[in-house]
Amino acid sequence: MMHQAAIGLGVHLRVLAQRPDDPAALVTPGTVIGDHHDFEALKKFADGCDVLTFDHEHVPTDFLHELEEAGVAVRPGPDALVHAQDKGLMRRRLTDLGLPCPEWSLISTADDLADFGTVVGFPYVLKTTRGGYDGRGVWVVDDLDAAKVVLADATERGIALLAEAKVPFVRELSAQVARSPHGQAAAYPIVESLQVDGICREVYVPAPGLPDAAALEAQRIALTIAKELGVTGMLAVEMFQTAEGGVLINELAMRPHNSGHWSMDGAVTGQFEQHLRAVLDLPLGEVRPVAPVVVMANVLGLDLPDVYPAYKHVMARDPGAKVHMYGKSVKPGRKIGHVNVLGTDFDDAVERARHAAAYLRGEIDE
Amino acid sequence: MMHQAAIGLGVHLRVLAQRPDDPAALVTPGTVIGDHHDFEALKKFADGCDVLTFDHEHVPTDFLHELEEAGVAVRPGPDALVHAQDKGLMRRRLTDLGLPCPEWSLISTADDLADFGTVVGFPYVLKTTRGGYDGRGVWVVDDLDAAKVVLADATERGIALLAEAKVPFVRELSAQVARSPHGQAAAYPIVESLQVDGICREVYVPAPGLPDAAALEAQRIALTIAKELGVTGMLAVEMFQTAEGGVLINELAMRPHNSGHWSMDGAVTGQFEQHLRAVLDLPLGEVRPVAPVVVMANVLGLDLPDVYPAYKHVMARDPGAKVHMYGKSVKPGRKIGHVNVLGTDFDDAVERARHAAAYLRGEIDE
Repeated sequence: MMHQAAIGLGVHLRVLAQRPDDPAALVTPGTVIGDHHDFEALKKFADGCDVLTFDHEHVPTDFLHELEEAGVAVRPGPDALVHAQDKGLMRRRLTDLGLPCPEWSLISTADDLADFGTVVGFPYVLKTTRGGYDGRGVWVVDDLDAAKVVLADATERGIALLAEAKVPFVRELSAQVARSPHGQAAAYPIVESLQVDGICREVYVPAPGLPDAAALEAQRIALTIAKELGVTGMLAVEMFQTAEGGVLINELAMRPHNSGHWSMDGAVTGQFEQHLRAVLDLPLGEVRPVAPVVVMANVLGLDLPDVYPAYKHVMARDPGAKVHMYGKSVKPGRKIGHVNVLGTDFDDAVERARHAAAYLRGEIDE
Repeated sequence: MMHQAAIGLGVHLRVLAQRPDDPAALVTPGTVIGDHHDFEALKKFADGCDVLTFDHEHVPTDFLHELEEAGVAVRPGPDALVHAQDKGLMRRRLTDLGLPCPEWSLISTADDLADFGTVVGFPYVLKTTRGGYDGRGVWVVDDLDAAKVVLADATERGIALLAEAKVPFVRELSAQVARSPHGQAAAYPIVESLQVDGICREVYVPAPGLPDAAALEAQRIALTIAKELGVTGMLAVEMFQTAEGGVLINELAMRPHNSGHWSMDGAVTGQFEQHLRAVLDLPLGEVRPVAPVVVMANVLGLDLPDVYPAYKHVMARDPGAKVHMYGKSVKPGRKIGHVNVLGTDFDDAVERARHAAAYLRGEIDE
C-alpha cells in the first residue's frame, strides 16, 4: 500500500523484506530480502536511501541510533520509535506530559502486583512492555494468584511487565496525525474502531456522535504526542472513551495503521501517501473525508482458501465497495484485506462494508 | 498507474516494456524488457499470463490474432483494437453503425483530394490512417495544392491517408466507458477536454453546462461502440461538440486514457482499476464522482529539469491538489504528470489545477 502511494508521488521506494512472499516484496521492484535484526543487512540496505522508514516498529533502536550516527535519515527516529516499542517508557513519558492514561505501574515483584491491586482493584491488566510471547502480550488477571502466575512466567523468560487498570470504556477511538521533520502536522478526523477479541473489525469515520470538543481534545492529545516525542510520519493513538466522555490513551503506532485504512479511499490524502510526504519532509496533504460517512471493515482469514469467487460476488453485489486485498496467504484470524465504503447514511455504509468483509471471510454465502 | 490499481486489487501485474527506464518498468517487479514488435518476445511474455492487455494501441494485430489462436486471452482483442489503430477502418465501421462522424473519405489519388474538397470545401483535414511520421499524423490543408503535397509525401512513404471535414466545434468532449467480456458496461460522466495545439491541457468533470440529453447521447454512442466493436477494458471516445449541440466522433482509444485520469482521485472507481476489472471479467466498479466538480490538468515538460522544488511549492500552496508524477524524464511538451483537484466551485477548481500544473511546468514562479 505504501508502494501505491510512492508510485503516485513519483517516489522511488526500496523495501527490505524478510521473505520473498511478503506482500510488499511481491509488488515492489528491487526488494532486498534480509532480516531487520541483522545490523549489516540493515546498513547495507539503508545505503543510498534518502530516508529510512518502517511499516512496523520492530527494528531495534540501537541499530537505528547507529544508522543515524552514520548519517542516515531515520523517520520516525529511534528516540520517538522507542515509545511505540516499550509500553513502560510510553506510559512514563505520556504521564510526564500530563496526558490521560489509565492507572499503570511497572511490575518487578509480587509485592508490586499486590500494591497495584490495592490501588485499582481486580481484575486488572498485565502487559509485556515489549512484544509478547506465545502469541500473547496481554492478560486480564482476576486476582493476585493469577497475576503471580503471569509474573513468574514472565520473570523466567526475562520479560518485563506493566500493569494497567482495566478501563470500563464505552468504545475505542483512534486519532491519526501526521508530522514532518520541519514540524508541520495534520490531524485526521477521530474515528471509532470496533474491536472483537482484541482484533480491529470495523472503523467508523467520523466517530459517530462524538461531540466536537471531545474530538478536538483527542486530536490535541495526538498532536501533542507527535510533537513532544518528535514523531515523523504517521502516528496512530488508540484511545478508550470512558463513560464520562473523556479519553484515556491505550496504544501508540508510529506508521500507517489499520485504523487509518479508511483514508485510502475516504480522504483527499490517504495515510500511506501522507506518511511518505511526512517522512520526506514534503508538505502534508489535505485530510478531509470525501464522503459524509466512511466505513472500513477488515477481511480476516477464516476457512476460505480461495477468496476469488467471493471477491467476484462482492464486487457484483456492491460496485461501490472498495476491496483491498494484500496478497497474503489466508490464515485464520489474519488480516488479509479490507473493504472501504463511502456513504451518506451510517447504517447503510456499515451494512455494506460488514457484508462485503463477512462474505470475503466466508462467514456468509449470500 | 495500472500497477497502483493492481496492488489494490491483489492482482499480479507483469509488464513488457521497451526500456528499463520506462515508467511502468521502474515501479513494477519482474518487468520483462522486450519489443512488442517482436513476436517471439511477445509470445514468451504472454506465456503464463491469464490476460494480456495494453497501455497503448501499437501491438500489431497479426501478432494478437496468433496469440489468440494459441489460447491467450487478449483484451481488448485484435478485432476491436484494429479500430483504434486504423482510422480508415474506424470511420467505415462507425459510419456503418450509423454513428455521427465528420464527413470523411479515404484518399488514394489527387482526384480523391479534389472530390473531397468539392464536398466539404477547404480547409479540410488529412490524417494518416495508421500512426504518423516525423512526429506528425494530421495536417490542415488550405487548398488542393497543399493537399497534394501531403499526398505525394505520404505516397512516397507508402502511407495511407484519410480526409476529414474540419469540424467547427465549440468544444471537445470525451466519453469513457468500460466493458467486460461477459458484456457488462459502465459509462463515466461525459467530460470536457481543453486542447491546446493538439495536446490535452485540462479536463472538466462533468462537462460544464452539458444538457442531460446530450450527455446521455454521448454515453450511448460510446456504449454502442464498445458493444458493437467488442471492446473489453476501457474505451475513450473523443468527440467534437458542434454549435448545434450535437456531437461528432473524433478518435477512439481502447485503454485508460488521459481524459479519464480525473477518475483516479475523482471517482469511486478509477479508470486503471476499472480497466483491470473489465479485462479480468470482474464485476465493474461504481463510476460516480466523489465531488461535484473534478478538474484534471496535465503537467507538460517545459524547461524545468528538476521539478522537485516546484513539487514542494505546489503541495504547500494547495494541500488538496493531487499531484501524480510519472517518473518520466522531462522533455518539452511531454506529459510528465497530472494534477487532480476535487471541488464544489468550477472556477475555483480550475484555478487550483491550472496553477499547480503551470507551476510544475515552470511557467509561473509564484
